[in-house]
Amino acid sequence: MIKKVLYAGSFDPITNGHLDLINRAAKLGDILVVGVIENRSKKPFFTVEERMDMIEKATDHIPNIEVDHFDGLLAHYVKQNNIDVVIRGLRATMDFEYEIQMAQMNARLYNNDVETVFLMTSPDYSFVSSSIVKEVFTLNGDIKGLVPDKVLEYMERKCKK
Amino acid sequence: MIKKVLYAGSFDPITNGHLDLINRAAKLGDILVVGVIENRSKKPFFTVEERMDMIEKATDHIPNIEVDHFDGLLAHYVKQNNIDVVIRGLRATMDFEYEIQMAQMNARLYNNDVETVFLMTSPDYSFVSSSIVKEVFTLNGDIKGLVPDKVLEYMERKCKK
Amino acid sequence: MIKKVLYAGSFDPITNGHLDLINRAAKLGDILVVGVIENRSKKPFFTVEERMDMIEKATDHIPNIEVDHFDGLLAHYVKQNNIDVVIRGLRATMDFEYEIQMAQMNARLYNNDVETVFLMTSPDYSFVSSSIVKEVFTLNGDIKGLVPDKVLEYMERKCKK
Amino acid sequence: MIKKVLYAGSFDPITNGHLDLINRAAKLGDILVVGVIENRSKKPFFTVEERMDMIEKATDHIPNIEVDHFDGLLAHYVKQNNIDVVIRGLRATMDFEYEIQMAQMNARLYNNDVETVFLMTSPDYSFVSSSIVKEVFTLNGDIKGLVPDKVLEYMERKCKK
Amino acid sequence: MIKKVLYAGSFDPITNGHLDLINRAAKLGDILVVGVIENRSKKPFFTVEERMDMIEKATDHIPNIEVDHFDGLLAHYVKQNNIDVVIRGLRATMDFEYEIQMAQMNARLYNNDVETVFLMTSPDYSFVSSSIVKEVFTLNGDIKGLVPDKVLEYMERKCKK
Amino acid sequence: MIKKVLYAGSFDPITNGHLDLINRAAKLGDILVVGVIENRSKKPFFTVEERMDMIEKATDHIPNIEVDHFDGLLAHYVKQNNIDVVIRGLRATMDFEYEIQMAQMNARLYNNDVETVFLMTSPDYSFVSSSIVKEVFTLNGDIKGLVPDKVLEYMERKCKK
Repeated sequence: MIKKVLYAGSFDPITNGHLDLINRAAKLGDILVVGVIENRSKKPFFTVEERMDMIEKATDHIPNIEVDHFDGLLAHYVKQNNIDVVIRGLRATMDFEYEIQMAQMNARLYNNDVETVFLMTSPDYSFVSSSIVKEVFTLNGDIKGLVPDKVLEYMERKCKK
Repeated sequence: MIKKVLYAGSFDPITNGHLDLINRAAKLGDILVVGVIENRSKKPFFTVEERMDMIEKATDHIPNIEVDHFDGLLAHYVKQNNIDVVIRGLRATMDFEYEIQMAQMNARLYNNDVETVFLMTSPDYSFVSSSIVKEVFTLNGDIKGLVPDKVLEYMERKCKK
Repeated sequence: MIKKVLYAGSFDPITNGHLDLINRAAKLGDILVVGVIENRSKKPFFTVEERMDMIEKATDHIPNIEVDHFDGLLAHYVKQNNIDVVIRGLRATMDFEYEIQMAQMNARLYNNDVETVFLMTSPDYSFVSSSIVKEVFTLNGDIKGLVPDKVLEYMERKCKK
Repeated sequence: MIKKVLYAGSFDPITNGHLDLINRAAKLGDILVVGVIENRSKKPFFTVEERMDMIEKATDHIPNIEVDHFDGLLAHYVKQNNIDVVIRGLRATMDFEYEIQMAQMNARLYNNDVETVFLMTSPDYSFVSSSIVKEVFTLNGDIKGLVPDKVLEYMERKCKK
Repeated sequence: MIKKVLYAGSFDPITNGHLDLINRAAKLGDILVVGVIENRSKKPFFTVEERMDMIEKATDHIPNIEVDHFDGLLAHYVKQNNIDVVIRGLRATMDFEYEIQMAQMNARLYNNDVETVFLMTSPDYSFVSSSIVKEVFTLNGDIKGLVPDKVLEYMERKCKK
Repeated sequence: MIKKVLYAGSFDPITNGHLDLINRAAKLGDILVVGVIENRSKKPFFTVEERMDMIEKATDHIPNIEVDHFDGLLAHYVKQNNIDVVIRGLRATMDFEYEIQMAQMNARLYNNDVETVFLMTSPDYSFVSSSIVKEVFTLNGDIKGLVPDKVLEYMERKCKK
């Protein structure tokens, strides 16, 4: 019955926590769209093209995946692309409060035709976020195992330049 | 891709908060099984048969629904019935903490083949639970609008006897 | 503008945390009603009469106070007694989740004519509750300073018998 | 007994969530002061004059209201203006933690003569905040029903310029 | 400087989550006392002797451990046995709220000479508790890996009888 | 058994809440290192030298204390200085969520040889943080009793210049 599932985020960069959710979300629909939010104002570490390239490399074992990018309101992207279900990951109470607020706002913007569903992140990755990974990497800490190996190579190459 | 979705609970009785989730969950799969947990030790207000009957009456507008009951471990029911996705409703932080604990325990018992997904309850029903509905009803408070009308009739008939 | 303020609870027994709230709530209206909930099913430690007597002794310095008792739904008591504002104390997140649920249920039962307002408990008493006080007292721990002195005498007298 | 109640905030702009609280808070005292915090450092979207004008237009049905503005410490404003009670709205756990911290700091600064009381926001508006309203509006999302109609006209006029 | 560390609980039975904390707590002092709380009122599944025996078997690789039992107030046990530090495990927000309340009550009963320190449970065991383990075991679910192997044998033997 | 305990933070400036934790943490090891994090990017109010000087003045009654400073990853400092235990203060749920995330990240970076232990802040100081103290001071509010007297003199002298 479900056709298109969206998992949207900054993915700056994709972590193993994101990858775990992508693997699980891909089973929930016919197509899983991974949507990179451009966030021009936030000065991301990687360009949209780099972020999409890392996601494609890390998810090349998943057949029913599409990697896309967008700017603007999630609700507009959802309607223009006939998304049926939006996936969100939940880690902890702080996430939860923010997520419930966004879900209620989006339910209103979607006119309730699109469902937001939440998956709990695995306890193995509950402490992993793109920002903590970048902070530890920048201070020369070891992040092997927290991001896909291909992402780690990407990060090392980017910083050598 | 998804076939069978399960929404399990005591439903003692089904409330309008449950019904809102059932309406939304029915769109996520080919079949939605509403599974009444028997909970023999907890001395429910309604028998399993009554609870199933109320659910059937309140959901007769949904074509792809099955109402069932079970005793014992959710994980066993899920495996024996080839459930693909288990739905849980989330209301507030207290729910969330308990739910994350159960989701992690169940992920282990399922060997990670079955996904638990969470839907946020509508803010209109965030304060409604079977136990608060029964408490208010027992103390002669007005619960119209909190449970389906057919359930209210059932409750009034049961208490007259 | 406000006339009658209600602070309801089991008060089994009244603690210094309750007393702090009563002192503050008495300034919010013309009359503060302290309403003892009978809770027959819960097997309280003190009878309703004892609980009312302890509250009266502990609050005899407050001129605009009335001590009352009731059984049944808070919303019914509120309407029958023309209460304008219901006071609730907030200690921590667990309280908060429960309180927000009850406040929304009660807003519905009151038809929104009665306002529930929340006061934060003083940090000095944030760990004090009737149940923890009884538990420590029963195990011969020192509870001086956690309940009014007159309540401590009452408890010692009751246990000697 | 209560004379002057204060509800302070940035109101950048006033939302229907704020308006619901203002309607309820106005019943708690003889005068309700709505105090616009200037927040010069935060670069608000609307000037203090615009924010006050929007509040006045949205609350012209409430007789006992005064709209004011201030800079600096809330505790100083409260003392200089003989405020008896400060109202705060509570939405969720994140609010709650911050609010309890501020309430305890302010209790100290007030020498405990002024009471902070909390009202729960209506579940209909629990997801509405000035910042989410501005974000959705800026990205061309529909915010009708989340802010008073007069505020929406104001926002559209401001952005046309 | 620290001499005696106490980790108290019902341990009905000891889980791998408890064992992880015991391994870590044993490094914080010269002696780690694992104190089994008798809880006569709560009708435990295992007797105190069985619970102590399981702990001893599961911790026989730790040299500086003592297994003891007590009834009554933790604060009394702490004083009579010259405990310097009490260890508590923290899993989630619900634990946290309860723990902060107990820590503040105990600080008062200890006259602040004894320190309560908290260790975060490993994310691998954050969903494991004695009660969920017993519930799953009773319903014939697989709990291998959640309790020490010797405890699992104990449980199977007890239920065969 | 414990040798070196670390309590790290910005201490911009040290508050009475920090001082309470330092007094308690000093009893947990042979040496307590108070480590000032330089945080060059965050534009602190006081220089590292000023922050260290204020800590030294406020803690001169504690014999086994060392005040140090560092930049970069906490995990690197911990390894280079043979720290055995890292102390963190916990105030409220928001702290807790962040702290559990950092503790799990650090456990990974430490290879689990170093233990992070948490102490609850005293309820008297649960609302005190360096940032709220600076905000109130800057707006001419009274912060006496929230920071050590020597720190208050330092702040007044700095602002006169």
